[in-house]
Amino acid sequence: MPPFNPLVDKLVPPPIPSVFAWAKSYDGRHGPLIDLSQAVPGYPVHPEMLKLLGEFAASAAYTGYGPIEGEAEFRQAYAAHACEVYGAPIGSANIHITAGCNQAFVCAAMTVAGPGDAVLMTNPYYFNQETTLAMLGIKSRFAACDPAAGFLPDPAALAAAITPDVRALAIVSPNNPTGAVYPADLMEEIFELCKGRGIWLILDETYRDFLPEGVGQPHGLFAKDGWEDTLIGLYSFSKSFCIPGHRLGAITAGPQVVSQVAKIMDNLQICAPRAPQAAVAKALPRLAAWRQENRREIALRAETLRLTMARVTKWKLGAVGAYFAFVRHPFDRRDSTEVAEALARDAGVLCVPGAYFGEGQEAYLRFAFANADAQTIRMLSGRLSRF
Amino acid sequence: MPPFNPLVDKLVPPPIPSVFAWAKSYDGRHGPLIDLSQAVPGYPVHPEMLKLLGEFAASAAYTGYGPIEGEAEFRQAYAAHACEVYGAPIGSANIHITAGCNQAFVCAAMTVAGPGDAVLMTNPYYFNQETTLAMLGIKSRFAACDPAAGFLPDPAALAAAITPDVRALAIVSPNNPTGAVYPADLMEEIFELCKGRGIWLILDETYRDFLPEGVGQPHGLFAKDGWEDTLIGLYSFSKSFCIPGHRLGAITAGPQVVSQVAKIMDNLQICAPRAPQAAVAKALPRLAAWRQENRREIALRAETLRLTMARVTKWKLGAVGAYFAFVRHPFDRRDSTEVAEALARDAGVLCVPGAYFGEGQEAYLRFAFANADAQTIRMLSGRLSRF
Ligand SMILES: Cc1ncc(COP(=O)(O)O)c(C=O)c1O
Ligand SMILES: Cc1ncc(COP(=O)(O)O)c(C=O)c1O
Repeated sequence: MPPFNPLVDKLVPPPIPSVFAWAKSYDGRHGPLIDLSQAVPGYPVHPEMLKLLGEFAASAAYTGYGPIEGEAEFRQAYAAHACEVYGAPIGSANIHITAGCNQAFVCAAMTVAGPGDAVLMTNPYYFNQETTLAMLGIKSRFAACDPAAGFLPDPAALAAAITPDVRALAIVSPNNPTGAVYPADLMEEIFELCKGRGIWLILDETYRDFLPEGVGQPHGLFAKDGWEDTLIGLYSFSKSFCIPGHRLGAITAGPQVVSQVAKIMDNLQICAPRAPQAAVAKALPRLAAWRQENRREIALRAETLRLTMARVTKWKLGAVGAYFAFVRHPFDRRDSTEVAEALARDAGVLCVPGAYFGEGQEAYLRFAFANADAQTIRMLSGRLSRF
Repeated sequence: MPPFNPLVDKLVPPPIPSVFAWAKSYDGRHGPLIDLSQAVPGYPVHPEMLKLLGEFAASAAYTGYGPIEGEAEFRQAYAAHACEVYGAPIGSANIHITAGCNQAFVCAAMTVAGPGDAVLMTNPYYFNQETTLAMLGIKSRFAACDPAAGFLPDPAALAAAITPDVRALAIVSPNNPTGAVYPADLMEEIFELCKGRGIWLILDETYRDFLPEGVGQPHGLFAKDGWEDTLIGLYSFSKSFCIPGHRLGAITAGPQVVSQVAKIMDNLQICAPRAPQAAVAKALPRLAAWRQENRREIALRAETLRLTMARVTKWKLGAVGAYFAFVRHPFDRRDSTEVAEALARDAGVLCVPGAYFGEGQEAYLRFAFANADAQTIRMLSGRLSRF
């Protein structure tokens, strides 16, 4: 057999399926499995969303190829929504629709970095960002987030890690895997750092809609003069609308970035699936109240997790936020992968090992607590204490 | 503004939208525009297909993330179909579903070639394959197809073009842009060449279902012992099922290739859209008769084009096949882009310039005749003769 591309050949297999396999080893002795592994909403999709998806999928109007950048109506609807969220003048020309936020990251990374260039990330990081860069031949640089600072990035550490080959800094807030929510002033400092050093800031806000109520705008970056020369925002419709299987994401950036992304998207898949775009264009305003409820529900789950973990001695919350908690397990000598596997088998709690999110994260586990309701989350204290 | 990735920055903008723009310059003086530009089926989607798409899109069962490689039922259904088409033992483990055939090519190319490696193509070529390689930092090598040989590739020319950095040969049959259908024995010769030289053969069969009736299997490559060590087959559901807007394609390859592709797809977009997969799994057997009818209809259109073009003096059919004709225009000194633009404006015939498909193709235009019914195709003689 001729050789494979070594950049792809040496990637580890996708992590989530390997975690699912551990679930099968649990015999149910403590009750049903508590699945805190994949970041999927733990409540059902809204019936109106399903109705819209069905309606547009059954329409001949969306069977043909669509505009590469996305359906005009959807770009318009999302731009209007983004204006509201950020209090900033964002227009259709700033929006490029993608088939999910992983694809949005692929497009953003390729737009600004080629083989041999580097992109700076935090450690821990969202694993698909690291593997995306690796398979494209783009180098990754890392700046460690201090657990003592709740895993917030340190601008000085970021600045020190910007080697001359770094073309962009990629950050995620609210963070995956830690849950840390980066405060607006920290975001601003990071933006100014990137601008000053002449590199792009790629900001993944997949979990933006699960920020606690009443904190106001997530940050002021899209309202800054000249933001289009520094910032590339990424978003996913998967979590907020409970529709990851329909594959929709968005890039918010300057029109010049949008033009570059269009060239990439044309090759990657011509356009994102059309019927879901038409459906979410309608759902964006219609499901606003439902999404507010979910925001409250997730906040309740976060609070429940905080209270629950406070009762479990020796296990420590490293950080907790919109969707995730990064939890320090009490087994100093055991790697997170071994602990997570045993936790699935012996306690019926499924989560993702810290080691999957970066070197040096072996003491941690990622709990995607948003998957479970408050009652289920409360059961964690018993399961973890007995483990 | 920080720089863009030069590999992306220097790509030309996607060609199809620029062709659409020419349509607007036609004032209708000869009757309605004859659109032979994009390769989209010129007949409507089947109502049963729409029904299935709507049904599964409205189901909560397909809202979550799905298996990276594709829905089990769909992989099974497509494998069974491929067995029939090729008379070869193809199983589920040989199938990876993608969001369209462009994405299938991206995955196949990345699986076998990294930055600095090369992939050999024919000239003319399908433009998205060339731009995909360019944006990934993979070099393109070309072997010219002789117009005198009906644009079939010459194995000796291919062999001579396999430089040591070439990791794969990418071919398209039935061909885009020429329409040339590669005979089974030529395919076999090309396969043996690749095998002997230790490179992969990437075979794009997007237009496979439009081969004339009664020619039997397109080729015998999937039935050859050890095919999995050389061949990677690509397919699109866009054309056969009239659903490009739903984005579905497939890779047929050895399980080891499928594993590599899964690592890439996980980063690119986690999984192809799920509801359309479930819908096409059902439609594959149900719409078999309808697809046979379309095959006959397209054959009729090809025959009509042959007869029509025979009556247009000075214009010459370079090749004609399943979906496309590659037509030599009579203006020796004018580039195909200038001719195509004028043809749109002055004759109301929209087509794609040969120059878009490779250097040296300036004397040709691509007619995607499958877009137009026989009656419309007959109008070409008047439009072209007067032009
Ligand atoms: C930070 C982050 N970005 C992107 C994604 C991918 O989302 P999508 O389903 O839109 O591709 C995820 C999914 O878990 C994520 O956690
Ligand atoms: C040869 C060839 N391959 C692939 C594609 C892309 O098809 P899809 O819609 O499945 O991405 C096309 C579309 O025109 C094509 O002509």
